[in-house]
Amino acid sequence: MKLYSFPEAPNPRRVLIFAAEKNLQLDVVNLDLRAGDTKRPEFLRKNPSGKIPVLELDDGTCIAESVAICRYIEALAPEPNLFGRDALETALIEAHHRHIEFELHPSIGAAWVNGPIVAAAGIVEPIEAQRLRGTSLTRKYYARINEELSARPFIAGERFSIADISALCMIDFAGAMVDLKPSEGLLHLWDWHQRVSRRPSISNY
Amino acid sequence: MKLYSFPEAPNPRRVLIFAAEKNLQLDVVNLDLRAGDTKRPEFLRKNPSGKIPVLELDDGTCIAESVAICRYIEALAPEPNLFGRDALETALIEAHHRHIEFELHPSIGAAWVNGPIVAAAGIVEPIEAQRLRGTSLTRKYYARINEELSARPFIAGERFSIADISALCMIDFAGAMVDLKPSEGLLHLWDWHQRVSRRPSISNY
Repeated sequence: MKLYSFPEAPNPRRVLIFAAEKNLQLDVVNLDLRAGDTKRPEFLRKNPSGKIPVLELDDGTCIAESVAICRYIEALAPEPNLFGRDALETALIEAHHRHIEFELHPSIGAAWVNGPIVAAAGIVEPIEAQRLRGTSLTRKYYARINEELSARPFIAGERFSIADISALCMIDFAGAMVDLKPSEGLLHLWDWHQRVSRRPSISNY
Repeated sequence: MKLYSFPEAPNPRRVLIFAAEKNLQLDVVNLDLRAGDTKRPEFLRKNPSGKIPVLELDDGTCIAESVAICRYIEALAPEPNLFGRDALETALIEAHHRHIEFELHPSIGAAWVNGPIVAAAGIVEPIEAQRLRGTSLTRKYYARINEELSARPFIAGERFSIADISALCMIDFAGAMVDLKPSEGLLHLWDWHQRVSRRPSISNY
């Protein structure tokens, strides 16, 4: 199994952490996003979205999306369980995970896509009002995470799950690349961040 | 089980269609979004995102997100299968579903949130450049769906799945509420739309 990846991107990092939790070694092929490697016809046949990560199986079948790859890995290596054990836990992890993915990720994404690094690369015409809205919604969501983590130890409840991996990768990316580090006063968020970052799966990737 | 819903919204429609595929009857409680029913403290305890749909179980546990609810229903009523049967099919349906959810849905969402109906309601200050970007990306994604449906009968492959439900609900919403009906020349898209819309689960909701 080959994982098409890029070292600084948050989505392949999710997959690498997920695989490390399962003690699974993936054969990583790093592409050069800036040189347009993911927009060439050969890669678009693997993923019409032109994005990484993509997992290519030995028979050439491609799974072209980070959480889809994680679900495949969960089926191959069920322990430790990261998506939920029974109907209710699976649904609750999914709900918390999707709140992060559909509320936090797009806000950070709007701040990033309309920010100076992407503008300098000439990929997207920046919309300043959208960048500001993204920044403000990100800060608001950080406050919500902080409040929720005052009542439970992990993003989706009592134990570590895919929701923690997705939240952490996006928060780290926002801090490093979008100037959107959570403020120091968000103590519950930072306590969770420290606890989770000590896991070998995370500190290694 | 109670489903908190709103008649014109695309996300509760996804859950209603999904439940109808399973021959499952949900007890629907329609809220008045325009009167702010989902922003009151009592509802925010059910879903801190302040959004519908929410599934409330008999013991009061709330599953606060549409696809999370669908996964719960899939576990209660496994047939007909809509999320995939084995590791690979599950991963491929998830990948195609997430392409729709992370590329088509946000583009339609940007056109909607920054459009005249939301502006008239005074909920969000519209950003015209964002609306135009959303419109253009939606049209581009429609063309991609059309091309993909020339090679396979359903969004995620050879059979009907959650990916078809999500795509259809969002395309119908875009046509009815955002003036973003796919153009008539997209023959494969419209052929799929007609075939899928004839299913009783869809024509009834």
